[in-house]
Amino acid sequence: MNKKLLGVIGGMGPAATIDFMRKVVDLTPATRDQEHIPMLVLSMPDLPDRSTFLLSGGPSPFPALLSRLHTLEKAGATCIVIICNTAHYWFPQLKKAASVEMLSMIDSVAQAASAARLSKVGLLATDATVSTRLYQTAMAQKEIECNPPPDSLQKATMNSIYTYKGGDPVKARHLMEEPYQYFLQQHVDAIILGCTEVPLIMAKEAAQDPAFFLDSNKILAQAVVRWFT
Amino acid sequence: MNKKLLGVIGGMGPAATIDFMRKVVDLTPATRDQEHIPMLVLSMPDLPDRSTFLLSGGPSPFPALLSRLHTLEKAGATCIVIICNTAHYWFPQLKKAASVEMLSMIDSVAQAASAARLSKVGLLATDATVSTRLYQTAMAQKEIECNPPPDSLQKATMNSIYTYKGGDPVKARHLMEEPYQYFLQQHVDAIILGCTEVPLIMAKEAAQDPAFFLDSNKILAQAVVRWFT
Repeated sequence: MNKKLLGVIGGMGPAATIDFMRKVVDLTPATRDQEHIPMLVLSMPDLPDRSTFLLSGGPSPFPALLSRLHTLEKAGATCIVIICNTAHYWFPQLKKAASVEMLSMIDSVAQAASAARLSKVGLLATDATVSTRLYQTAMAQKEIECNPPPDSLQKATMNSIYTYKGGDPVKARHLMEEPYQYFLQQHVDAIILGCTEVPLIMAKEAAQDPAFFLDSNKILAQAVVRWFT
Repeated sequence: MNKKLLGVIGGMGPAATIDFMRKVVDLTPATRDQEHIPMLVLSMPDLPDRSTFLLSGGPSPFPALLSRLHTLEKAGATCIVIICNTAHYWFPQLKKAASVEMLSMIDSVAQAASAARLSKVGLLATDATVSTRLYQTAMAQKEIECNPPPDSLQKATMNSIYTYKGGDPVKARHLMEEPYQYFLQQHVDAIILGCTEVPLIMAKEAAQDPAFFLDSNKILAQAVVRWFT
């Protein structure tokens, strides 16, 4: 295999990986099977919980992420992405260890926000993504203000994400209502759907007003299509 | 990796592979990421066209299928499936070459039809799946009558499938109407959605009356969940 092959570290959760793949397929200008982007997708949901490790300790997901990276490289991947915003905490270390190209979800979203000339964005993400300041730092480099909701609403956001992972999308959407309303009242330019489950939870709103949502799955899918073509 | 890992030979087309993955996730009784089925998915749409080879010659897809099988085995897959009905023409040869378990989509559908005590089913599939008699033979072994539509409607079915692969789901559904109506008039017990694109084309009808449709993606997903649990 010496042609372009996208390697995907996924399964965190599995529905988010499927959402990403669907967006890649939808964004690819193909008129027959053979024009689509070849992908090798490692959907391994048994990765230790990212938020638990970063906030309260326990087994680190890093060795498992590195092992998945090497599995994909050995199988012929020529570019690798990670479908989990929180796991991007380890992106710099993984990129250093990788022998092939990697595309960052966080950087892709920051570039998209900058290209859209946004100045103030809200962040819906896990506690760990918020506390490691992955998005706040990337946005600050583009001179964009980026804030999570206040603590009580951040708690609701986190509950919503774990409720979705637990198989209850209706309750998950309900729990996300208050943080969503908060950002509407703050008159942000856009909301980062900064956990790969959040584009699924907010799918209806994101479809109705795509410019108001920075969908981390869709923006990475766009970066992948650009890489391929 | 010594745990169960599902290997998926997919990408034929990519949307069908995503549909299969979605059905595995939906059918898995999981309450958190870590309870989902680990998968390694090779979505490689550049496989030579199965129908073209079987009906009019050209490059054989077999060497590429075998290479994908070995890639998945080397990467640690412990059970392998192929998300393409037509490619099951090579299933016996691939199974012989495989060092790990393989689950057949065709056999899974035949078992499901037998378990549901059906006696007469219609077949919506590619010309090559029809002419190689993959389903007719498997159903005959279960004493189930299985017929494709007459030639002119088989032509419409094939057009519908390639129209879907070409990115026009609305026109694809329109083209499938006549073959669908034909089977309703024939009073079949069920219709085999026997090409992995057809469950996507007939998604609305299959959701409304799941017992009337033998969805090859969904039935293989059920077999995978049984294998895993």
